[in-house]
Amino acid sequence: MQECVFCKIVNKQIPAFKIFENEKFIAILDIKPIAKGHALIIPKTHYETIQEMPETDCEQLLEAFKKVSSAIVKALKADGFNIGLNNGRAAGQEIMHCHWHIIPRFNNDGLKSWPQTSASEQELKKIHEQILNVLNTQELPL
Amino acid sequence: MQECVFCKIVNKQIPAFKIFENEKFIAILDIKPIAKGHALIIPKTHYETIQEMPETDCEQLLEAFKKVSSAIVKALKADGFNIGLNNGRAAGQEIMHCHWHIIPRFNNDGLKSWPQTSASEQELKKIHEQILNVLNTQELPL
Repeated sequence: MQECVFCKIVNKQIPAFKIFENEKFIAILDIKPIAKGHALIIPKTHYETIQEMPETDCEQLLEAFKKVSSAIVKALKADGFNIGLNNGRAAGQEIMHCHWHIIPRFNNDGLKSWPQTSASEQELKKIHEQILNVLNTQELPL
Repeated sequence: MQECVFCKIVNKQIPAFKIFENEKFIAILDIKPIAKGHALIIPKTHYETIQEMPETDCEQLLEAFKKVSSAIVKALKADGFNIGLNNGRAAGQEIMHCHWHIIPRFNNDGLKSWPQTSASEQELKKIHEQILNVLNTQELPL
């Protein structure tokens, strides 16, 4: 897509610190990292959301997840990592070209998980029914 | 694995609010949800980390991502969703059986992204070299 910054990076119209590439994906360093070594895995094709990504891409996605996370952990001497996808503006997606964050984590790095709540059996049962109702009656993904 | 709570859920030794199943994965509601409809996608095989997950599983993983997220968004009238993997205790992994979180998001729900930093060209260049050095000299994933 002509005006998409990630498409421009894929097409080498904008420079980036590329660390990995396979047939379907590239990985680059995030220039506003949450932690040192924070990388982005970006499909070469412009999909706005994961719902548009075809099954034919996923072997290469898993390869990228595994190799990039492993290399980052090793290079930065990290203790773990998060992989995250923000799908939609409400979820924090800033660039509307589907991408995955790989964030190296360190013991006691101060990054806090979001607070958990406690759900009653009754609440869970109701939500379970609502979701099953969609899954059983509609052609998905929507 | 005998003592693993997710293996017990997969094997129906422990009940759960299951919302989806295919050959390789199940999805259940998280009983301590970050948001209503928070679900977990769990491989039926006990992999401790994503590094152990074989490429043969990934088509079904993408199917689970797409169908489960789509159904949750529709059922809960959400505005978006996050998909997240915590790999290792430092990254917040509590149950050592690889699993993905799907968290529905709502406009102005108050969940904050982790703070970004600003990295200098020089810092990024150094990290880029460190990561490439690992990728070019070691057999990955590690």
